Amino acid sequence: MANIREIAKMAGVSVTTVSRVLNEHPYVSEEKKAAVQQAMEEVNYQRNINAVHLSKGKTYLIGVVIPFSNSPYFGFLVEGIANEAVKNNYKLVLFQTNYELKREIEALNMLKQKQIDALIICSRISDWEVINEYKTYGPIILCEEVEDKIVSSTYIDHYKSFSIALKYLHQKGHQRIGYCIGRKSGRNSEMREAAYKNFLLEHGHPLVLDYIFYDSFRFEDGEGIVDRLKEMNSPPTALLVTSDQVAAGIITCARELGILVPNELAIMGFDNQPIAKIMNITTLEIPLVEVGRKLFIQAMQYPTIFQEEIEVKLIERLTV
Amino acid sequence: MANIREIAKMAGVSVTTVSRVLNEHPYVSEEKKAAVQQAMEEVNYQRNINAVHLSKGKTYLIGVVIPFSNSPYFGFLVEGIANEAVKNNYKLVLFQTNYELKREIEALNMLKQKQIDALIICSRISDWEVINEYKTYGPIILCEEVEDKIVSSTYIDHYKSFSIALKYLHQKGHQRIGYCIGRKSGRNSEMREAAYKNFLLEHGHPLVLDYIFYDSFRFEDGEGIVDRLKEMNSPPTALLVTSDQVAAGIITCARELGILVPNELAIMGFDNQPIAKIMNITTLEIPLVEVGRKLFIQAMQYPTIFQEEIEVKLIERLTV
Repeated sequence: MANIREIAKMAGVSVTTVSRVLNEHPYVSEEKKAAVQQAMEEVNYQRNINAVHLSKGKTYLIGVVIPFSNSPYFGFLVEGIANEAVKNNYKLVLFQTNYELKREIEALNMLKQKQIDALIICSRISDWEVINEYKTYGPIILCEEVEDKIVSSTYIDHYKSFSIALKYLHQKGHQRIGYCIGRKSGRNSEMREAAYKNFLLEHGHPLVLDYIFYDSFRFEDGEGIVDRLKEMNSPPTALLVTSDQVAAGIITCARELGILVPNELAIMGFDNQPIAKIMNITTLEIPLVEVGRKLFIQAMQYPTIFQEEIEVKLIERLTV
Repeated sequence: MANIREIAKMAGVSVTTVSRVLNEHPYVSEEKKAAVQQAMEEVNYQRNINAVHLSKGKTYLIGVVIPFSNSPYFGFLVEGIANEAVKNNYKLVLFQTNYELKREIEALNMLKQKQIDALIICSRISDWEVINEYKTYGPIILCEEVEDKIVSSTYIDHYKSFSIALKYLHQKGHQRIGYCIGRKSGRNSEMREAAYKNFLLEHGHPLVLDYIFYDSFRFEDGEGIVDRLKEMNSPPTALLVTSDQVAAGIITCARELGILVPNELAIMGFDNQPIAKIMNITTLEIPLVEVGRKLFIQAMQYPTIFQEEIEVKLIERLTV
């Protein structure tokens, strides 16, 4: 493929002139411009856009770290990010970590090496020291409350929202309340655990570890939860389920076994995903697509760093 | 930031030597190597990886075109692609097209401009002439049977699989069979439509346009389908639904209205997604994660071009 040196030679101009034509520099005579364009057409010159980005220091790529490619929760976040990215001519580089630290570090290194212009971490694994180190290389945006506000974030106050939900279940008369959650670690999970433990303390309820169900990510995870409930002598009468998909799976499996929802088992979902509306699941609404949109906007507003809390809303339907 | 010229000066070696150290070239004395490394450490030299990729002509990015970020069907494909990409040190650049042609052209242009090493189009919009033009710029991999085998593809014979499903429903005694599908256009949809029409012809059934339900992508789309069925005087007794998620949505909404599945309405899904197993949905298994894996492998095997057909399998459960 021809390079700009060859184009310059063909057009009888300097390399600088060719470069100016490529970059739409104003100080090039129409005559020279035409000669360069003709030469480029003759050899079907294709500019290497990576070289252009290299010189401009921008890639128009934004990294997005998610644990799984195929999860409705993260799917909605990615949808919100992608919709806003499209408007701004950005493309997403997807990092599926499977919650492996080294994958997240790879994403951070791509920011360091300027292969992406910004990095949105939807579910973080690295320690704060790591984030603190990498934040000097470009915008890192998180989806959780951030210590010392070192980077921008759009987040839910999970302590508060879990407390709202627990209070609601308690008001409905439930004494044995359990919860289903994705991973055990991570700030959002820790906040929820703290809210749960404080709620138990406040009401003098014992902590029953069997009432906490980890690794609840998908519809099909509902099956294992119902299997475990069946085995219990004194199962919880209500479950707070941090994903409507999992809630839908629990309800579907419970119904097949003849367990009455909400009379024998009350279910409260999270997110207000479309499946919650159709299956009439009582839930705490989190506007995930909107959170995704804000995450992208925060990346664009760098170096301005700010935190934005998203409010949740209790939606009463028929499963509590 | 220091460049390699400055590093060379500090270390008292040539630029070539610095370049050799960076590229782990064997013919560099340990002494010079140490001097270069010390100089790099002193100035905290950060190599611009885009410049490295530029010189190697590789980005380790693979483009993936999908209509929606948040769809279980495409989610499984992306999962398969992402799993294999991770193993090969590749990252995915996601193009969410919303079925807008210009978004797909943007993706094709990124291949042309060498911003990605290959492009997997999970659901194509462009004409064959466009694909034919862009295929000269790098590997394009499709998820459908390809005319004239101009690019690689991993595909399902949708004519055959639809015919299998229709024959099965017919053997079960159904005379009025409808189907639910994503978009109306696209080769996969056209193949299914052809199979459907030929089936009707063969059995002397009339074509009832109301029995075809387009824009059926998600669980929640089941609601509108059931609403339309309710309004019909002579609704289909069986539906072939090209996504288990939509099938699950139809079954859930039908049950709420007291419509008996399969007695009043038989439902046959597609894919054998986890939701089909849990809800006991009779389905045609398509190993989507495996299809995604093969799509990535085909991208890596370029310039070898080949087609691979994936077989479907009828899984009998309780909804037909």
